Amino acid sequence: MTVRIAMDAMGGDAAPLEVVRGIVRVPAGEVDEIILVGDQTQIESAFQKIRKHPPSFVRIHHASEVITMEDIPVTAVKQKKDASMNVAMQLVKDGKADAFVSAGNTGALVASALLTLGRIKGIERPAVVLFIPTPTSEVMILDVGATVNCKPKHLVQFAVMGSAYMERVKRIENPRVGILNVGSEEDKGDNLAQESFPLLQKAPINFIGNVEGTQILEGKVDVAVCDGFVGNIVLKFLEQIGLHIFRLLKEEFKSHPIARLGIPIVAPAFSGMRKRVDHEEHGGSPLLGVNGVCFKIHGRSKAKAFRNIVPVVRDAVEGQLVQKIADGASRMDEAEVRA
Amino acid sequence: MTVRIAMDAMGGDAAPLEVVRGIVRVPAGEVDEIILVGDQTQIESAFQKIRKHPPSFVRIHHASEVITMEDIPVTAVKQKKDASMNVAMQLVKDGKADAFVSAGNTGALVASALLTLGRIKGIERPAVVLFIPTPTSEVMILDVGATVNCKPKHLVQFAVMGSAYMERVKRIENPRVGILNVGSEEDKGDNLAQESFPLLQKAPINFIGNVEGTQILEGKVDVAVCDGFVGNIVLKFLEQIGLHIFRLLKEEFKSHPIARLGIPIVAPAFSGMRKRVDHEEHGGSPLLGVNGVCFKIHGRSKAKAFRNIVPVVRDAVEGQLVQKIADGASRMDEAEVRA
Repeated sequence: MTVRIAMDAMGGDAAPLEVVRGIVRVPAGEVDEIILVGDQTQIESAFQKIRKHPPSFVRIHHASEVITMEDIPVTAVKQKKDASMNVAMQLVKDGKADAFVSAGNTGALVASALLTLGRIKGIERPAVVLFIPTPTSEVMILDVGATVNCKPKHLVQFAVMGSAYMERVKRIENPRVGILNVGSEEDKGDNLAQESFPLLQKAPINFIGNVEGTQILEGKVDVAVCDGFVGNIVLKFLEQIGLHIFRLLKEEFKSHPIARLGIPIVAPAFSGMRKRVDHEEHGGSPLLGVNGVCFKIHGRSKAKAFRNIVPVVRDAVEGQLVQKIADGASRMDEAEVRA
Repeated sequence: MTVRIAMDAMGGDAAPLEVVRGIVRVPAGEVDEIILVGDQTQIESAFQKIRKHPPSFVRIHHASEVITMEDIPVTAVKQKKDASMNVAMQLVKDGKADAFVSAGNTGALVASALLTLGRIKGIERPAVVLFIPTPTSEVMILDVGATVNCKPKHLVQFAVMGSAYMERVKRIENPRVGILNVGSEEDKGDNLAQESFPLLQKAPINFIGNVEGTQILEGKVDVAVCDGFVGNIVLKFLEQIGLHIFRLLKEEFKSHPIARLGIPIVAPAFSGMRKRVDHEEHGGSPLLGVNGVCFKIHGRSKAKAFRNIVPVVRDAVEGQLVQKIADGASRMDEAEVRA
């Protein structure tokens, strides 16, 4: 299967330089084509700056405008027709690329995908996801910010999408899906959780019930669904908590000067640890529910993320992720869970 | 001001032994009286076991029943009339004690407080709280589990209660109150957050707007309000995250044997760190909104928590916490924010 990635070369805090630095590390043959979309002069300068030629599988596609982090998402997507993000998305829509990747404005990314690609039939709301590393693997939480004020049917749709992703991209058989909740009993939670429970029992997925944070961190589930408000609050705490613990620890080391002598010795274990929780190791995360393979990369990402996302995107294309979600959504119709 | 604490001697995983071990460490004069409520024989045996006599300020008040962690809260509270928790609560109701403390079943504690003490006028829903340590102080998040499916007016009531606590017990002048949200702009969030914003602007508190997890961890706010579903999910992640990071780190140390040699050297900084995040250092946390000073202690707590809670409870009684909340609630009426 041919895999051609349209990559927004202008998205992210250090674009296009870090994008280019990442792409030159992609081994030939990993994908068929990477189309770098953005200002041709700036992209070429970036290659010159690192004294490399674009690899043979890379093609530059000029786009004259850029959507910034400060832009108002929907407005920018509609007004900046020639923005790199819009142009890259259009390549996917036109069948000239098989997947889209950007480290740009997340709101704009979601808006551009919805306006250009549209939604998968049977999926009413898109979802962005968070992967949490566990001792044995990782857990996907969704939605973490695309859709707030969810109805129960939306959580069911998230469950179908998350399940499809874990099966097709992470190669997990029959992924276990739970509701992110405050307790494991069936009657726990707010109205949304309580009303979603019976619908998820009927859905075409491996629903295992309610799960708390503890169980997620222990890897007792592969996918946990929640409203995007709850998910985004969790995301922001978890993104910061490593840093926070490090900050508190740093203060402790200040008052224990002898302990500081041990830092160089223990450092290798800490850097291994950092690697496990570093979002750039994972490259990025999918936007699910839109009619095309779309990945977002953290805005602060460096070269490593742009390099590491490539095989993940390839797996999503080759695993026919979008088709799998569409199949799940149509079976959901049959199961009469779209209450 | 006289401070008499009714302490449920049978609550918690290691009661009454850990309760008694904690109480004997309380210096004379810290409070006027501690009434240990529970099975007299078991409490006396616990004192014998640690070879101590009850301090002069301690009195044992017999109660023949115990509410367990497995009991269904409301049912147990209603049926076990002579349960230590109910009896201790009744002492507060009858004016024979000034505050209540228990490490027992949280649901039962909330039910017992509501049924026995009732709510403060103007407060419709109670709240339990979580304190998050920051580099400079700590932030209170509420509600973290007592009230789900909140309406905007409930978040306003939480704000008034949290503000009163931080002012009277933590001695923070004009505490900054925010809404726990997914962004700082006024229009961010789900329906609840958006509808609460203008009400909080009119409330008799120092409202500073929306705050994200990042800002909470940086200590940019003293109190953050949210629905109990969201708060409890955050609580459970944060309770486990330290353990989780430690678990991931342990695996890293396995693959870096040399790094393990450094552990004894860095250990003092880590134990200082643990002390900062250890819930037992703080003793426990208040149940707010009920008509009396009530504190809950974590069920797995050891002696230290029972000892450390005593001065905190004293500060709440001497600071006239309940009166302060009632004053805030009545000013809230005047400000016409009880939509």
